[in-house]
Amino acid sequence: MGYNLAPLQNLIDHFERMQGVGHKTAQRMAFYVLGLSDAEAQDFAKAITDAHTKIKQCKVCCNLADDELCPICKSNVRDKSVICVVEDPRDVAAIERTHEYNGVYHVLHGAISPMDNIGPDQIRIKELVARLGDDTVEEVIMATNPTVEGEATAMYISRLLKPMGITVSRLAYGVPVGADLEYADEVTLSRALEGRSLI
Amino acid sequence: MGYNLAPLQNLIDHFERMQGVGHKTAQRMAFYVLGLSDAEAQDFAKAITDAHTKIKQCKVCCNLADDELCPICKSNVRDKSVICVVEDPRDVAAIERTHEYNGVYHVLHGAISPMDNIGPDQIRIKELVARLGDDTVEEVIMATNPTVEGEATAMYISRLLKPMGITVSRLAYGVPVGADLEYADEVTLSRALEGRSLI
Repeated sequence: MGYNLAPLQNLIDHFERMQGVGHKTAQRMAFYVLGLSDAEAQDFAKAITDAHTKIKQCKVCCNLADDELCPICKSNVRDKSVICVVEDPRDVAAIERTHEYNGVYHVLHGAISPMDNIGPDQIRIKELVARLGDDTVEEVIMATNPTVEGEATAMYISRLLKPMGITVSRLAYGVPVGADLEYADEVTLSRALEGRSLI
Repeated sequence: MGYNLAPLQNLIDHFERMQGVGHKTAQRMAFYVLGLSDAEAQDFAKAITDAHTKIKQCKVCCNLADDELCPICKSNVRDKSVICVVEDPRDVAAIERTHEYNGVYHVLHGAISPMDNIGPDQIRIKELVARLGDDTVEEVIMATNPTVEGEATAMYISRLLKPMGITVSRLAYGVPVGADLEYADEVTLSRALEGRSLI
């Protein structure tokens, strides 16, 4: 006999499948659900199915959207001549939080990673190239992650786009604001030196 | 404009209401849900409503049950003359994991805590007393938490039961197995000294 009833164990298993959730946390979450009122539990379950059925991909930028187009592609005030290419919808949210960027995005939904069998065809590169057909786009900013895969993806795309006469740029590398130089790794620090600017 | 679409934000909010889940974790969980297949998301939602509708309280011990009685109260091999009183259904699971206890349980669903306006009537003490009407029960083991509230609850119940001629015992205090004496707090250590046994 297990220590938990089947419906409870089932819920624990569901929570435990999430990344970063261990058995104890999953159990605490399941007990949280048991402690909800009936209406709250229904709401919670509905939030899951709703998020899953209502959220699609934007036809233009492949970002998450609850309509044909995402709110950013729909907007009239965004500068359609600059496309910021990111790996993940979460990266869009991160850049939006800076309030510094007024262009549009393109979400690749991954990065080229031969180790994981992810080639250029498995991510949304075709869709990006298709957007560059007319001459509205002037610059593509590669904002893929500063990892081996992100770098490789940025290099691959830049080689693809340069012959099309489009400016391709990359996010600056350097020491993160507020960090301690002492703890910065050598690669970051040498990139920060390379990229130094006049003051 | 928020950075997240309404159905996504709603799901994030639901996850964030769980104890110990911050904004970033809730966001990661919501994206995990988006990454599920339709069937998996339906399953997940169903697990929540199922756990909530199918799990009730055992009529005897107030533990979680998917029937009138919980599996432990139903069992013929458990010794009904010993009742272990715990605060929470999770504590039942913890004690069951020891494989050392063969009696039955009583789940209080809380502890007396005047600070939080929880008095003896807000937890399942009445139900415990009702179980002691016939003479089958010989011992009640107080396994409430070793906190101020758990202590107070154990004291309150023991005063209630002693006049009924029932043996009331309390879990032993001491240093946890595998711990370092150096790091044990003074109260625990002095309790361990008090409760020392001959070897």
